[in-house]
Amino acid sequence: MLLKLDAQRGMPKGRQIVDQIRRLIQRGHLRTGERLPSTRHLAEQLGLHRSTVSTAYQELWALGWLDLRPGAQPRVRQREALMDLEGPPQSPFPWADRLVLPRDIPEAPRPALQPGLISFRDFGMDPRLMPMDPFVRSLRAVLRRQGPQAMHYGDPQGQPGLRSCLAQRLGQHGVQAHPEELLITFGAQQALDLTLRGLARPGDAVLVESPTYQQMLKLLDLHGLRALTLPEGSAGIDFAALESLVRRERPVLLYVMPSFQNPTGRCLDQSQRESLMALCERLSLPILEDGFTEEMKYFGRPMLPLKSMDRTGHVMYAGTFSKVLFPGLRLGWLLAPRPCTEALTAVRRAGELCPPPLLQEALEDFLRKGHFDQHLARLHRRFRRRMEVTHTILRRELDPAFVRWEAPSGGYLLWLELLGFEGVNLEQELQRFGVAVKDGASFFALPPPGRRFLRLSISNLDEAEITEGLARLGRGLRALSKREQG
Amino acid sequence: MLLKLDAQRGMPKGRQIVDQIRRLIQRGHLRTGERLPSTRHLAEQLGLHRSTVSTAYQELWALGWLDLRPGAQPRVRQREALMDLEGPPQSPFPWADRLVLPRDIPEAPRPALQPGLISFRDFGMDPRLMPMDPFVRSLRAVLRRQGPQAMHYGDPQGQPGLRSCLAQRLGQHGVQAHPEELLITFGAQQALDLTLRGLARPGDAVLVESPTYQQMLKLLDLHGLRALTLPEGSAGIDFAALESLVRRERPVLLYVMPSFQNPTGRCLDQSQRESLMALCERLSLPILEDGFTEEMKYFGRPMLPLKSMDRTGHVMYAGTFSKVLFPGLRLGWLLAPRPCTEALTAVRRAGELCPPPLLQEALEDFLRKGHFDQHLARLHRRFRRRMEVTHTILRRELDPAFVRWEAPSGGYLLWLELLGFEGVNLEQELQRFGVAVKDGASFFALPPPGRRFLRLSISNLDEAEITEGLARLGRGLRALSKREQG
Repeated sequence: MLLKLDAQRGMPKGRQIVDQIRRLIQRGHLRTGERLPSTRHLAEQLGLHRSTVSTAYQELWALGWLDLRPGAQPRVRQREALMDLEGPPQSPFPWADRLVLPRDIPEAPRPALQPGLISFRDFGMDPRLMPMDPFVRSLRAVLRRQGPQAMHYGDPQGQPGLRSCLAQRLGQHGVQAHPEELLITFGAQQALDLTLRGLARPGDAVLVESPTYQQMLKLLDLHGLRALTLPEGSAGIDFAALESLVRRERPVLLYVMPSFQNPTGRCLDQSQRESLMALCERLSLPILEDGFTEEMKYFGRPMLPLKSMDRTGHVMYAGTFSKVLFPGLRLGWLLAPRPCTEALTAVRRAGELCPPPLLQEALEDFLRKGHFDQHLARLHRRFRRRMEVTHTILRRELDPAFVRWEAPSGGYLLWLELLGFEGVNLEQELQRFGVAVKDGASFFALPPPGRRFLRLSISNLDEAEITEGLARLGRGLRALSKREQG
Repeated sequence: MLLKLDAQRGMPKGRQIVDQIRRLIQRGHLRTGERLPSTRHLAEQLGLHRSTVSTAYQELWALGWLDLRPGAQPRVRQREALMDLEGPPQSPFPWADRLVLPRDIPEAPRPALQPGLISFRDFGMDPRLMPMDPFVRSLRAVLRRQGPQAMHYGDPQGQPGLRSCLAQRLGQHGVQAHPEELLITFGAQQALDLTLRGLARPGDAVLVESPTYQQMLKLLDLHGLRALTLPEGSAGIDFAALESLVRRERPVLLYVMPSFQNPTGRCLDQSQRESLMALCERLSLPILEDGFTEEMKYFGRPMLPLKSMDRTGHVMYAGTFSKVLFPGLRLGWLLAPRPCTEALTAVRRAGELCPPPLLQEALEDFLRKGHFDQHLARLHRRFRRRMEVTHTILRRELDPAFVRWEAPSGGYLLWLELLGFEGVNLEQELQRFGVAVKDGASFFALPPPGRRFLRLSISNLDEAEITEGLARLGRGLRALSKREQG
């Protein structure tokens, strides 16, 4: 038996023995029943301590490659399908048909990012605007102050300091929050998942806007829930139709994004907010309000979340730092009446115990030192300009004969309705003009027949990129429209 | 109306106006219908720009405190229950009875940590042994190298670099892992939760050891699953009884911790491992193997996970860095056949999108630079000594007439069976002797009648603390036993 131990590779000698013998067996150079040198013999041969070889043999025994018997020489053991072990993983999984999967919402495959493509698809913080330096200082401050404590288990509900800091901040949106009512989550996303986990049973119905946040449709499906859509008339929500729908279908939850909705970028106006609250209170329908870009109001007068009007415990309010600070923090929250927060904390505790304390403590430090407020002010200045440019160029480049849109008062999103273009793969066709967009169909529980929408996100683009990108979009749509008519 | 704006407090003036007017209304100093000064008038009075006051009034309107009509003076609006707003949060939650909750496993209340108490309850990394400096250097290296990218969204399956590094490491335990088969989770805990989420339906049965990991019992309950217990005979698992149980009850999963089990600290021996694998393969029963302290083998010959023998895709293998490095990283993994990993990645993506990339990248850097191996070697040296002391002192202090235990070959845990002590609240009584322990009852799906157990963890205690703590335990048990007999 020929083993070559390599001192240069930095791998422990015992490990090299195990790997090499295993390979010899796998490749058939050592066969079932064949004898290996005794521990002493091999140790002498390789110039190693006997215990190193002995440990390696024991590991090979535990792995099922060798038979070891006191006083006898080691032998290659009988094993089935030894040759299986090489090559890429192709383990079967006999229970594959039992797996629960979220619905695979039909979506055009994500375009490969060709060089020079301007993407209105991506919806995340612009890395150029992330306040890295003060955050790194906050990380360091926490590590210095807390030492190993910052790397230990934390509070399953979220670090108390962050919760209390967040409760204060929510006051700025007119929301009265107590730190005990707040649960720190992995982004707003997990707040939605936990709420469904805590409040809904398979088969229940949940009311959503149409269109709505695509990931919420996946979550509903994953939880085995039915999506009902909020009836709309010409002037917004049709409250009479809503009331009869609720009485008939008894949904367990209404999910809404009243401010800068994803995908439409729209805001529910104050009177609709009040009517919706009043109706839900009367019908005893709990509301899950997703305020994922609440902070991005940079035009016009303030608009406050439904939660700010909630006196009866009807509203659970989810928010996140992902869309205005660092997505990678994975920190968001759910604000809910205490019994609900307690129950969902118990669910989270059984699930992941707690979110990483270090990131929460650093975020608290960052907030308390005023960096978040400064950052937001800067973000507002930037996006006021970006959105103004967007409006200007849209008016210049898009022909109202085949595109309609509303100018949003904040946020990052625009929603275009296209007239015509039936059967056209818009994502793919527009890419030829150097611009990536998102087809609106995936945001509907039931896409309205014959209508076409595009979602545009300007979150990652500066003024020059927006100007050029929208010019390409305009060119592309004009060309496609001509082709259609031609 | 008397408003006092304070330039020193650092709070924006507009915010101060909103807060103060709201307080005046809440306290009854301003009543429903009462008029407020016009925007211009109040701006002059306070020496502010008119738009500041106007924005504050608009916010008060949006909050429902004021009526604003063009050309008219603002008035205090009619609102119900204004006085509710002060005081601690006591929001009702009308759907409280609908909430799903994990079973509240009866447990003696966690003892308040009296000064000087030595705690064998806590089961977490000893902060004194956490390798902070190299980890902080890894964090810095990643932030320097990646900049904002480290704070952006990451891979829902976990960062590819960490997965590939982990796949290599698992080879050291004889496990053939491919990065695509690995899902990075929030600790082993979330691997368990996700597996149940993906593979089990309410009403299904899951086989667990008895006793087993307490949080698994909570998870089973949360998922609406039935716990079956692995039948044991005098020589370990009773395979005949197990086979007939599986045929009768058709469990969807077997959950085991073959190495340093929590709570008993025991290891399943190699021949039992092999028989268990063979039986599960024959009965087509998937295994969820929890290797949460796999790395803590510091005595005796190597012992490899069931996963190392898996050629048929029967084993899902969960592990974690929580018990050997930093609990607060919240990083663990599930290694499973690819169809399973893919499905659970989709579930996680719908839930929290991805774990924080920064912490994963820093962990990868830490692993690749060899710091984890160095740290483990140090940990092994320390715990070899700590466990040796534990054995010595246990033999000296505990009377085999009323306490039995086995000396574990690694890990942090010991499991004592007490003879007698029926009806005694051991946690509470032993605290009077200055020592905290964990009653074993909460680790059983069905506690065996008339038997008493204690779980001791030495994870947080050095040799001196172990020596003193076990002496106190011995003293306490002797005293309680005397009282029982007296």
